[in-house]
Amino acid sequence: MSTKTLDFWFEFASSYSYLSVMRIEPLARAAGVTVNWRPFLLGPVFLSLGWNDSPFNIYPPKGRYMWRDLARLAARYGLPFQVPSRFPRNGLLAARVALVGADEPWIGDFARAAMSANFADDLDIADPAVIHRLLAGLGLPADAVLAAANSADSKLALRRQTERATELGLFGAPSFIAPDGELFWGNDRLEQALEWAGAGPANSMA
Amino acid sequence: MSTKTLDFWFEFASSYSYLSVMRIEPLARAAGVTVNWRPFLLGPVFLSLGWNDSPFNIYPPKGRYMWRDLARLAARYGLPFQVPSRFPRNGLLAARVALVGADEPWIGDFARAAMSANFADDLDIADPAVIHRLLAGLGLPADAVLAAANSADSKLALRRQTERATELGLFGAPSFIAPDGELFWGNDRLEQALEWAGAGPANSMA
Repeated sequence: MSTKTLDFWFEFASSYSYLSVMRIEPLARAAGVTVNWRPFLLGPVFLSLGWNDSPFNIYPPKGRYMWRDLARLAARYGLPFQVPSRFPRNGLLAARVALVGADEPWIGDFARAAMSANFADDLDIADPAVIHRLLAGLGLPADAVLAAANSADSKLALRRQTERATELGLFGAPSFIAPDGELFWGNDRLEQALEWAGAGPANSMA
Repeated sequence: MSTKTLDFWFEFASSYSYLSVMRIEPLARAAGVTVNWRPFLLGPVFLSLGWNDSPFNIYPPKGRYMWRDLARLAARYGLPFQVPSRFPRNGLLAARVALVGADEPWIGDFARAAMSANFADDLDIADPAVIHRLLAGLGLPADAVLAAANSADSKLALRRQTERATELGLFGAPSFIAPDGELFWGNDRLEQALEWAGAGPANSMA
């Protein structure tokens, strides 16, 4: 098993997280890096920066540009994309499910399914029926997974994970942290982060 | 002469503009694209977004990350870099000089010299003596260029150029605009912007 790892911090409501969730697994495999999936909530992180909404909504010129940039990048990557009819969607339930599955073999499939629901199929990922359908579609015991996701332990775990994101100095998503603490922010840095993590002990265990 | 062009909007105080100013000319040449140099001031643009300082100062986690990202990118590009002892520096005089020289053969050399002064040599580009020395070092008539830069016409021209930036929906620097109006933001998009502009009439004259 690879000892080269990369912590991948993402949020289901985040547009640029969509691109990285869809791209990371084959790139990580090629780089010989194991991905640690770290779902978290951007809302509390943004609040700590004084934003009560996505900065893409607070600053309309940035928001307009972001959607155009997303469409161009999705086309380059060959990913389906449409601007969601609601943004940001509430990613709380999807994040709880992802945290339940963070070390399970289905985490990548689930993350891609939920992200695609939001950014390709314009489905409301805050709706438990939508998440249930996605889980069932992956052949998973949807009732049991949702029950685990809605447990008190799971809620607390996501709260702690989100607090940890702020402690780590995260201010957006996606973010990538190598074992040596090196931080990379944004889908634009996915390749560079994997390169850093893949360089091994020289970088990753310093 | 090439009819493929790209408008390059940059600010001398902007850290990511430094990277693009240093990189753009050889990349544009390889893409068969002529660069239109568009110096402007970010201050009024930021004010229109409600920021009275660089967002890298307003949001400390973003600022800390930005300097680390800059150092990593500069190393990748083989560019000298040190964190300026003052940020952002006042780029007003340098922008006026660049606007005077925007269509002159020395614009690229001057822009690189002033950017290097700020981000590699930690010199105060707001100091007329520094700019005078840079101009003289390029073999230019420094007194005459500075007189032109400080004329009423030049001051008005920079004010108009900066208003134009806001009208175009710019919210940061560097920004790149293709002839068809396609906007690209950030040093990370320089290659993509040149590719778009270089694709010619299909893109650039639509």
